[in-house]
Amino acid sequence: MKIADYIKKNIDENFIEADLPFKTTFKKVPMGSILCDFGEIENCVYFLVRGIVQVNILNTKADFRILDIVFQENFFCSYSSFLKSTPSDVQIVATTDCELEVIKKDDLLLSYQNSLIANQWARYETEKLYLKRVKREKDFMTKTKEEIYLELIENNSELIHYLSIDSIAKYLGIHPESLSRIRKKKIKRN
Amino acid sequence: MKIADYIKKNIDENFIEADLPFKTTFKKVPMGSILCDFGEIENCVYFLVRGIVQVNILNTKADFRILDIVFQENFFCSYSSFLKSTPSDVQIVATTDCELEVIKKDDLLLSYQNSLIANQWARYETEKLYLKRVKREKDFMTKTKEEIYLELIENNSELIHYLSIDSIAKYLGIHPESLSRIRKKKIKRN
Repeated sequence: MKIADYIKKNIDENFIEADLPFKTTFKKVPMGSILCDFGEIENCVYFLVRGIVQVNILNTKADFRILDIVFQENFFCSYSSFLKSTPSDVQIVATTDCELEVIKKDDLLLSYQNSLIANQWARYETEKLYLKRVKREKDFMTKTKEEIYLELIENNSELIHYLSIDSIAKYLGIHPESLSRIRKKKIKRN
Repeated sequence: MKIADYIKKNIDENFIEADLPFKTTFKKVPMGSILCDFGEIENCVYFLVRGIVQVNILNTKADFRILDIVFQENFFCSYSSFLKSTPSDVQIVATTDCELEVIKKDDLLLSYQNSLIANQWARYETEKLYLKRVKREKDFMTKTKEEIYLELIENNSELIHYLSIDSIAKYLGIHPESLSRIRKKKIKRN
């Protein structure tokens, strides 16, 4: 799926690629590529055509936690840095080889000035991002790590083929040993 | 300031009230009015012309915490409930007597279909809300309660005339006694 297909599916069923209100470019990056680093000012919005990326945030111990995991057919960028033009406090890394469609910030801001579809799409994406953030905050306040883990792999069953135990533990904010116990419990139950 | 003035100031300097893409109504509510209750489905977006409102969230102890405090010339609503049409998990209460300009959800959704300015404004508001949420999360992870308190009253000096010590403590998530200590320390320093 490309950005134009995504807009057709989610925003306007009559949308065609020729009407895209901004330029996009395609890019393939190998696993481990850093798409936005700590301290960098985010200059792009990415559509993940294929692959998985992860968003790392430094915790107090100079070690990182995984703040977010993004799956294909979703947009991502260091959004606070993008909106405020301030140094990014997250790092975005390709967890697998990735295929990306890239929008440059200047092109996007220009399209906001007079394109209805650009604003409809960006409003929709920002709403989604807001809801994701709220859900995450609420989950971490009200659910056990086990419940969060089970929901994560239920919705993204391919995840465990691509992310190490260590990475999933970093996302949940627990020790890898605790995650192993949760996984063993689940295998026993199945 | 009315919604039209806000749009003129923040979105399009040539905007005039006659171009407003949705109907709005004015409303005065007394202090203590509940604008959206726990479990209710949010059906409006409010612009706070005058006054202060607070957003309460239940914590695990069947007691509430203050999730957010909204000052005049800002929009508010139970946004997750509004976007997903699900029961609200927050309660919005008028902390003072308030004057409001109200947009009905149906009118707003209709305007999203073909109004550039409605989508530009809603994108802008959702971006602001997203950044506010991120800042709050980060502040509560990295700053002391004292730093958060000092920043809060520095940016909103009138706050202490309207919110009780108890309410500010509920916002910071600390005991009122701890807040009293912080306040005494600040008075001594000044």
